Amino acid sequence: MTAPRRIHLGLFLQGAGHHVSGWRHPEAESGSENLDLLRRVVQAAEAAKFDMVFLADGLTSGVDAHPSMIARFEPLTLLGALAMVTDRIGLAATASTTYGEPYHLARAFASVDHLSHGRAAWNIVTTSYARTANNFSKSHPEHDARYAIAEEFVDVVRGLWDSWADDAFPKDKARGVYADPGKVRVLDHAGTYYSVKGPLNIPRAPQGHPVLIQAGSSGPGQDLAARAADIVFTAQASLPEAQSFYRSLKARVAGFGRDPASVAVMPGFMPVVGRTLKEASETLRELDRWTDIASAMPLLEERIGHPLGAYDLDGPLPDLPLSDQLRSRAELLTELARREGLTIRQLALRVAAGRGHHIVLGTAADIADRMQEWFEGNAADGFNVMPPYFPGGFDAFVAEVVPILQERGLFRTEYEGTTLRDHLGIGRPAWPGA
Amino acid sequence: MTAPRRIHLGLFLQGAGHHVSGWRHPEAESGSENLDLLRRVVQAAEAAKFDMVFLADGLTSGVDAHPSMIARFEPLTLLGALAMVTDRIGLAATASTTYGEPYHLARAFASVDHLSHGRAAWNIVTTSYARTANNFSKSHPEHDARYAIAEEFVDVVRGLWDSWADDAFPKDKARGVYADPGKVRVLDHAGTYYSVKGPLNIPRAPQGHPVLIQAGSSGPGQDLAARAADIVFTAQASLPEAQSFYRSLKARVAGFGRDPASVAVMPGFMPVVGRTLKEASETLRELDRWTDIASAMPLLEERIGHPLGAYDLDGPLPDLPLSDQLRSRAELLTELARREGLTIRQLALRVAAGRGHHIVLGTAADIADRMQEWFEGNAADGFNVMPPYFPGGFDAFVAEVVPILQERGLFRTEYEGTTLRDHLGIGRPAWPGA
Repeated sequence: MTAPRRIHLGLFLQGAGHHVSGWRHPEAESGSENLDLLRRVVQAAEAAKFDMVFLADGLTSGVDAHPSMIARFEPLTLLGALAMVTDRIGLAATASTTYGEPYHLARAFASVDHLSHGRAAWNIVTTSYARTANNFSKSHPEHDARYAIAEEFVDVVRGLWDSWADDAFPKDKARGVYADPGKVRVLDHAGTYYSVKGPLNIPRAPQGHPVLIQAGSSGPGQDLAARAADIVFTAQASLPEAQSFYRSLKARVAGFGRDPASVAVMPGFMPVVGRTLKEASETLRELDRWTDIASAMPLLEERIGHPLGAYDLDGPLPDLPLSDQLRSRAELLTELARREGLTIRQLALRVAAGRGHHIVLGTAADIADRMQEWFEGNAADGFNVMPPYFPGGFDAFVAEVVPILQERGLFRTEYEGTTLRDHLGIGRPAWPGA
Repeated sequence: MTAPRRIHLGLFLQGAGHHVSGWRHPEAESGSENLDLLRRVVQAAEAAKFDMVFLADGLTSGVDAHPSMIARFEPLTLLGALAMVTDRIGLAATASTTYGEPYHLARAFASVDHLSHGRAAWNIVTTSYARTANNFSKSHPEHDARYAIAEEFVDVVRGLWDSWADDAFPKDKARGVYADPGKVRVLDHAGTYYSVKGPLNIPRAPQGHPVLIQAGSSGPGQDLAARAADIVFTAQASLPEAQSFYRSLKARVAGFGRDPASVAVMPGFMPVVGRTLKEASETLRELDRWTDIASAMPLLEERIGHPLGAYDLDGPLPDLPLSDQLRSRAELLTELARREGLTIRQLALRVAAGRGHHIVLGTAADIADRMQEWFEGNAADGFNVMPPYFPGGFDAFVAEVVPILQERGLFRTEYEGTTLRDHLGIGRPAWPGA
């Protein structure tokens, strides 16, 4: 008997909430250095049996950014900390292939996998914002070059994760054998972008390979996801778009000879829970009212890749050449504006609210209905839940929406296993041999 | 009234113990993935009121390495974890200026400082082993170039740590001010090796700047330490050598216009505690007997920078040209061999035992006497304690030596403050302004 297909849930954690004005809600707590808040929220997600908590990342700062992105914990050190105050929930962090080194990155995620006894996941990004280069003494590679680099980077990381057999460290005191010299695999990678000899200086991870998440929606992004990822994180504003993306992605997965069911598509999803639809709408309207259009515009402009100050805020989005660097993100927003006939102002507020992700307003049952519709309609295998503010905006979801999903048999009521791979129902990669 | 000068104590943590055969001791536990062991040992150090726990690091692996260096946790993720299971002890990790990026490193240490509420320290190393380059798609810079890079790297990191005023994040809900635009300092560094704009994407650290440790003993290493470090970690095999290094270092500190008392010199120190000197000697002899000379030789050869297979193991160390890459380390060992008339075999075993650090055998009182002698004789402001094996080799030090130091008024009986800077008695750097 096959286990029934179940929804996977991630908590997308941002210190100041996802709505750009979430931190201004009377009940909101915020702050990237607010470890106490983050700990409570993650423990609440674990009590609700979420698959994972998910940390975004960026390598720049500035006062005109989304509050959660001005300042935050470095994700891997934070995951190390969260590993000690949780037992079961998966721990996912974003890290860039454009601004990192495969050896450092392979090692840090393997380390978190050990610290958490098999709960680590790496969200692979190539970093879209060119200004990042200013912090790293280099120039920003173009979109397609970034993905070519990422493809090789990911292969090096996976190779390094196979440096040692699972039983490579007998620590046999009598024979004096700490590491078994027959159980090491030297990678000796020499490619286009990287030369990495190995072996990695940490034992093989409890999960073999930490779980891989990919979040790029461009063609090269989908290809990398289809070839290598276990989870695909994506921004889909409507059901038809999400279904189309889901179909396309699963076909690509099959094209790489992989089982489409082994890759979980998890769109971002912002629930705004009220006792009535009216109350939920009022909550969102209030958050939008706190959003200064002057602070929302930079968020839209950096996603579109163009200054928009010369255009009428209450007119339509003009036809603009799409920046190569930001292609997939800019396309999604342009389509959204066209489809819904949004003005520049309305689009800026929408981005400030949910950054192009699906926003659902309503009662807990309304929200559960929408999740079920997307899940059963082959638009999603799960959701990366983006509360507009913390902790209240998440507490309401946990207290009211999760029990409905559980009653409907759509979501687990207890963890069946101990690792993130267990939660996802995917196997552990075997060591390929020396 | 000035507080009396007190010994500073660090626990130098290595998963398999410091003696190369420490892990073979009948009571030893080991393993880099053995989080439970590391946690217990660090909590024991905190209960004993140690200033800090100290993690070495390296960016290569191989079965001929010291067992603690074949495989270990990535230090910063481990510090994140240890921050959650300790309250007061300082948390120091090693990270390389040759194989890292200032932005990543500044951010990760600031993050650990937030996670631990002001207990982070960075041990600055330039990475001496040229084979490291094989894991990082680059070539290994020469010794003096590494230090020139390190000097600039450290300045960039310190500059990034000053990106935000301590009160830069009012999070004023009514006025809608999350970050105060007047309280950010954009670094705009453009130097010889690095171009880093900033600001850093994390609030200013609780300590202002995490504590800086420097461990290079060459001339350029001492200069970097004297200019920038709060703690100097060093390998000194004998009292006269240690006194000479201490004098030299403190003079260099004064030469940079800094108070010599503000920099703590902490040599590595391996205590082997017995009920009698004979029992302690027998413990060390037993550990040495477990050391295979074939596995000890690579450890010596990598420090000397030459293969030694062509020479008589029971003859003297030949005159060898000192490798530029390893100059200070090779000099220390050559001097040690000359002074004590050690054969190659004896030197290899000494390196396998303590890697050139001071080894003290005896009763708890003998060991306390030696520490007092070095401390009062201006050879050390404290010690980085290197137990030959864990946990027993450390438990004996904590149970027997620490109380003697406390009775003599040489070591604290309670933490007076909450941050590592408090433990060291050094101030918190003020924000330099926007």
